[in-house]
Amino acid sequence: MGATALRAQDAASETDAGSKSAVTYMPILAQRQFVSNAKAIKATPYADFFTGDLTVSTDFARSLQLGTLDKAETLPPSVAGLNALLDLDHSATKNGYAVLDGSTSYVQSRHVMPGVSAEMLRWWFTWHEVERERYSLWFPHAHIENSVQDPQRLQDRTKTYEQRLYDNPNYVKELVGPTAMELLIRFKDPAKLGFDAKAFSDRGFIASASGIVGPATADDVINSMMIHIARDTDQGMELVSRYWIGAHPDLARFEGAEKAAGMMAQAGYNDSVAEMSAYELAVHDMIEFTHLASFLPALHARFGQE
Amino acid sequence: MGATALRAQDAASETDAGSKSAVTYMPILAQRQFVSNAKAIKATPYADFFTGDLTVSTDFARSLQLGTLDKAETLPPSVAGLNALLDLDHSATKNGYAVLDGSTSYVQSRHVMPGVSAEMLRWWFTWHEVERERYSLWFPHAHIENSVQDPQRLQDRTKTYEQRLYDNPNYVKELVGPTAMELLIRFKDPAKLGFDAKAFSDRGFIASASGIVGPATADDVINSMMIHIARDTDQGMELVSRYWIGAHPDLARFEGAEKAAGMMAQAGYNDSVAEMSAYELAVHDMIEFTHLASFLPALHARFGQE
Repeated sequence: MGATALRAQDAASETDAGSKSAVTYMPILAQRQFVSNAKAIKATPYADFFTGDLTVSTDFARSLQLGTLDKAETLPPSVAGLNALLDLDHSATKNGYAVLDGSTSYVQSRHVMPGVSAEMLRWWFTWHEVERERYSLWFPHAHIENSVQDPQRLQDRTKTYEQRLYDNPNYVKELVGPTAMELLIRFKDPAKLGFDAKAFSDRGFIASASGIVGPATADDVINSMMIHIARDTDQGMELVSRYWIGAHPDLARFEGAEKAAGMMAQAGYNDSVAEMSAYELAVHDMIEFTHLASFLPALHARFGQE
Repeated sequence: MGATALRAQDAASETDAGSKSAVTYMPILAQRQFVSNAKAIKATPYADFFTGDLTVSTDFARSLQLGTLDKAETLPPSVAGLNALLDLDHSATKNGYAVLDGSTSYVQSRHVMPGVSAEMLRWWFTWHEVERERYSLWFPHAHIENSVQDPQRLQDRTKTYEQRLYDNPNYVKELVGPTAMELLIRFKDPAKLGFDAKAFSDRGFIASASGIVGPATADDVINSMMIHIARDTDQGMELVSRYWIGAHPDLARFEGAEKAAGMMAQAGYNDSVAEMSAYELAVHDMIEFTHLASFLPALHARFGQE
């Protein structure tokens, strides 16, 4: 039975389409980080929003257990790939992971968030980097550190979201599966990444937290692109995400990407490592955005004026 | 907040005590093994019992995410430890994992299985080793190979369960978390492991699939003990399990255990590896026995005369 047949079988199973499952696996280091994060957040005004009881969609979790996506189901990180993203029927696009050219870990996901608006997401992306404890709300077992290069600009409410976040390098330390990662995310205007600005807005996308990423320990290297674009729908905010981590040739348009292949080969990255990393990242994305959606409306109602 | 406080918090959370969750994480190799097992089982008469839709108790899964058990909550693999197991109130004993002396991975669990009897468990332990596809029913993503040294004796219905299974070395190959293990299990009369036979039967235990275990690649080494003891209750069969994997001093009474410390040190086993292995094994035990309970009554009804 091939992966496609298994997918069909899964779709036809008795699973209730709306059913939720508790997260049934948490790596040891994440179990420990949770204890540490739980202590640290106690003295903050938003401690009530911290919980280790994480749940996800049963269908989403199972869709990640069917092996890698076929290449035809994926998108490359090219300009054409990004713009194809604007026209996809995301309700019919699978959540999943794959390995693409250049031993690139690839993840695609869609989260529909009832009660959440793109405005709340924008607020979240200017609020959570200010204190590491805020960041820990998002994934209480996995999130460790978070800061931006210019925190004053990030918090300047006289500026737009875009002026506050973009080109304000964001240092993050987090566990992805069992592995601690230290990354430098450069959030950017989606047009600078390759999106057609008119098509972006024509398709209703009104918020982006997308950028190029490299290891925090080598700030001249770019080895990833991360896309989070959002629009409001009748069912709540739709978040469309893509991650490419590796020496993918289509990332060559970004300065620093030429150094990715050498660095990743030296670190032992190959297709097999890329596959494991892609799956871990897919699980991480599933958990953190499902969890964010569960508390963001109430958090925003309480702290949205900050 | 210490682990104990977190446990109390967890117990007080809104989780429905009876709630079930789909398994939300499956290592890459297990995803692949499932595809292979799904193909292999198609031609068998018991293919209907094969499914990848695994669920577990939400509370059970969360109880394994709270870090290691305190040592006082665990039992050693000594004769006294085994006999203490007979008198424990298992309904009040936590499911969990720990690291004990000698970098020993430790797991304790209790499964109550409505509709299952100890008789069915005995049948299962003489039936599933005959074909690897039968073994795959038990954990469709993780079980790879299974055989016994003397299959004729195993299938000889003129003998007792104990005569068929005990001292009939059982080779198993399975994924525990992301790692393929090849083991040789020596199921034994519980009295030979250290249980007091009278106390065992006085407490209502009527079936055992317990033994000492070593790597299949070094059949003169014993580095584990595995206990599965069962009794019938009003709620269904109660299965009490313990695993000790390592150079625990209390295993020294078994021939071959003196070689465990050297072998495991050479393989890079230490407390940190033992902790990860213990958690992975705890998750494996949770999934496989929960799943077995879900199909064993119907499977036994159909094939119980074999």
